[in-house]
Amino acid sequence: MMTINLICVGNIKEKFFVEAVREYQKRLNSFCKLNIIEVKETNFNNPTNSEIEIIKQNEAKEIKKYLTKYNILFNIQGEKFSSEEFSKFISKKQLEGLSELTFIIGGSYGVSNEIKNLVQFNLSFSNLTFPHQLFRVMCLEQIYRAFTIINNKTYHK
Amino acid sequence: MMTINLICVGNIKEKFFVEAVREYQKRLNSFCKLNIIEVKETNFNNPTNSEIEIIKQNEAKEIKKYLTKYNILFNIQGEKFSSEEFSKFISKKQLEGLSELTFIIGGSYGVSNEIKNLVQFNLSFSNLTFPHQLFRVMCLEQIYRAFTIINNKTYHK
Repeated sequence: MMTINLICVGNIKEKFFVEAVREYQKRLNSFCKLNIIEVKETNFNNPTNSEIEIIKQNEAKEIKKYLTKYNILFNIQGEKFSSEEFSKFISKKQLEGLSELTFIIGGSYGVSNEIKNLVQFNLSFSNLTFPHQLFRVMCLEQIYRAFTIINNKTYHK
Repeated sequence: MMTINLICVGNIKEKFFVEAVREYQKRLNSFCKLNIIEVKETNFNNPTNSEIEIIKQNEAKEIKKYLTKYNILFNIQGEKFSSEEFSKFISKKQLEGLSELTFIIGGSYGVSNEIKNLVQFNLSFSNLTFPHQLFRVMCLEQIYRAFTIINNKTYHK
């Protein structure tokens, strides 16, 4: 069974998003070993540009602790897939012998260039910016959907 | 104040999505008059291709009852915006004198070509397919985000 790590900056505050994440975690149990790793968010009130750089650098330090052999960063400028293509991407990684994939969702101000360059793949779900709490749900849902496609299961809507 | 109609096929079953929708509805109250119109979903168990056509035709009949002067269909093949561009799109419609915009989220099998051709705009949030319950949350979040950009408000994350 593949291990999927999801590194997220900051925690989820809204109860309904916590529960949505829990639901997809539960569903993913049939397909992979999922680890959600929450790293510390750096907070500034209305940060200036240089403070935003500090935030990103602090968060990068935390993210780097958990990087593995193959890391995929959610980056608005990254490559775009359909759900079908995303499932093929995961399946190809499995066939290449990777037993672990690490996805990274940045914080409110994005991630440092250092992380963008360190990762093996930059992936974009949309040109739109979503709040990271909602994005975590979207990401787990797509990973779940990918595994249902790989395993030829009827999607449990 | 602008009126935003959101025509959705089918209702939301998951409690956490119901609550997420309620939260964005509440937040949108400051910016627009929001009407969520749920039209009846046609259900078949593992429908064949011709049954899918029947589903889409039935749902189209329902959707057509609520179309207004300017209708925007969420369609994976539609135009893609950033959040900034989406807010400019809404703001431009306001400036053109439109007081009402109608968004349409199709059902599990998409919408009929008739609806695709009837609407004034086809909009795509992503190449990925999301479940319509989650998509409703994503859609309300982006409309909320658009109004915060238009009104120059700090986004309430």
